[in-house]
Amino acid sequence: MVLSKSWLLAKHFEGFPKHSDFKLKEETLPPIKDGEVLIEAVYFSVDPYMRVIESKNNKFQVGEFVISSAGWTTHSISNGTGLHLLLPNWPEKIPKSLAVGALGLPGLTAYFGLLEICRPKAGETVLVNAAAGAVGSVVGQIAKIKGCKVVGCAGSDDKVAYLKEIGFDEAFNYKTAPSLEEALKKASPGGYDCYFDNVGGEFSSIALLQMKKYGRIAVCGAISLYNDASPQKGPYVQFPLVMNELCMEGFIVLRWQNRKEEGLKQLMTWILEGKLKYHEHITKGFENMPAAFMGMLKGENTGKAIITA
Amino acid sequence: MVLSKSWLLAKHFEGFPKHSDFKLKEETLPPIKDGEVLIEAVYFSVDPYMRVIESKNNKFQVGEFVISSAGWTTHSISNGTGLHLLLPNWPEKIPKSLAVGALGLPGLTAYFGLLEICRPKAGETVLVNAAAGAVGSVVGQIAKIKGCKVVGCAGSDDKVAYLKEIGFDEAFNYKTAPSLEEALKKASPGGYDCYFDNVGGEFSSIALLQMKKYGRIAVCGAISLYNDASPQKGPYVQFPLVMNELCMEGFIVLRWQNRKEEGLKQLMTWILEGKLKYHEHITKGFENMPAAFMGMLKGENTGKAIITA
Repeated sequence: MVLSKSWLLAKHFEGFPKHSDFKLKEETLPPIKDGEVLIEAVYFSVDPYMRVIESKNNKFQVGEFVISSAGWTTHSISNGTGLHLLLPNWPEKIPKSLAVGALGLPGLTAYFGLLEICRPKAGETVLVNAAAGAVGSVVGQIAKIKGCKVVGCAGSDDKVAYLKEIGFDEAFNYKTAPSLEEALKKASPGGYDCYFDNVGGEFSSIALLQMKKYGRIAVCGAISLYNDASPQKGPYVQFPLVMNELCMEGFIVLRWQNRKEEGLKQLMTWILEGKLKYHEHITKGFENMPAAFMGMLKGENTGKAIITA
Repeated sequence: MVLSKSWLLAKHFEGFPKHSDFKLKEETLPPIKDGEVLIEAVYFSVDPYMRVIESKNNKFQVGEFVISSAGWTTHSISNGTGLHLLLPNWPEKIPKSLAVGALGLPGLTAYFGLLEICRPKAGETVLVNAAAGAVGSVVGQIAKIKGCKVVGCAGSDDKVAYLKEIGFDEAFNYKTAPSLEEALKKASPGGYDCYFDNVGGEFSSIALLQMKKYGRIAVCGAISLYNDASPQKGPYVQFPLVMNELCMEGFIVLRWQNRKEEGLKQLMTWILEGKLKYHEHITKGFENMPAAFMGMLKGENTGKAIITA
């Protein structure tokens, strides 16, 4: 018998999430049945990452690390559906927590979103916002690997310093820049061929006007809009889209589910070659998960936000 | 010596164009020099279509029909740059005015915009607005030729009747529909794979929410936004784009300049086969050109708006 703790959503968010929106629940799990495994969370993300502690399913061995979507819970029982093993031959020196970061969905999101939607060519200029985040930091580094000039923007001077450290050509703090338009123009006076957008909203309206002819915009997320109680409005996009014949495409990484292994292997190779650097923002303690979640929404993390059990 | 009349822009439009924004000018043209041709306008469009009445350029013969961008002018002298001959072997029974309509830039805009940006597949559902216009009416018919279900919307009951007549599966009057959302849902309860957008603005914000997963939006124009003194705002597009992984691309027909002949030949073939029907909204008299222009912006025309000399 194992005691499992879970964070539940006590109340749907109204505007920005509050601590009181979450509730901690404890329950005793039943014995596992044939075909099932009991898993214990080691690292948490929005998609938790776990380790098998008991198994009656021969696809999963006790002690093996798995990726699961069981939710914000310390222990759970699974029949194996939706449970994923890590890449085989995971090198000792690579933290397993990367399986929910640069070697997981955030890394794959950067890899496929940039290469398939932005389709950057060597010599082109790529803009990425929330650039110090789990996805943005990988986007910028892949664009460098592909021979592009990369401009990143983030919300603190420390993050900007980090972006320079991992090879961004230009980086600026959008919170202290007097004018986003001027900062974008200064970083690339000729404009941008590709724009990997994690932010949406007003940032995007301004960035669209800095795109070159035939520019490609990968819409990955819209963190500036997620926590509004009522939807914000901005200028219609049709003018810049027609004027410069821009292509703006939204995507979800699951689209490339069948190419996951290709993506993960390439990302692992780049990490082992030292071409792709990673940073984790680690919060200790399951009890701090709501705080870590709210911190991530506020941009407190550099790199992937991870919670350890 | 030839007297040429031209419509000039006396004053930049503020909001919707007014008759007093235009001014009629008369001038006597000088004799033509070697390499030049004197052309007389026969049909006018936004890009006027003309006939050579005197030539000292052996690429153009007297009496030949040409397409020119000389502006709103009855006679002009050209050294041949930017002057285009019609498709060779133009059939007697096909009006030459189609060279500025279904067999000109509007037709090519429909052809390449639909086929290259929307990329419709047989069995898919295509939405087009301003569907009774010069571009929209061709878009819908090409989509039918390609085996799609076609939904069109226009601004009068006569136009809706015209859309049914030329083969649209569903058509409605957006001005009298109590709810655009409901009208779009009723016309295609399963949503839309392709959306050819001539209108932009609020129409587009509502239509985006009716797109199917991986839907493609060709942004051709934004007639609902052209005449605003200050830019309108609407809901940000990032949510629907990411949610259904939509691809929204603006375009200008000149992108396919090198495939113009392919497009025109195909359009001509469809017209001769009776698969592509056309309608012209003809205004007589050069003096009525500003009125015809303003009427076009108000949607008074079904099919291409043409002014005859």
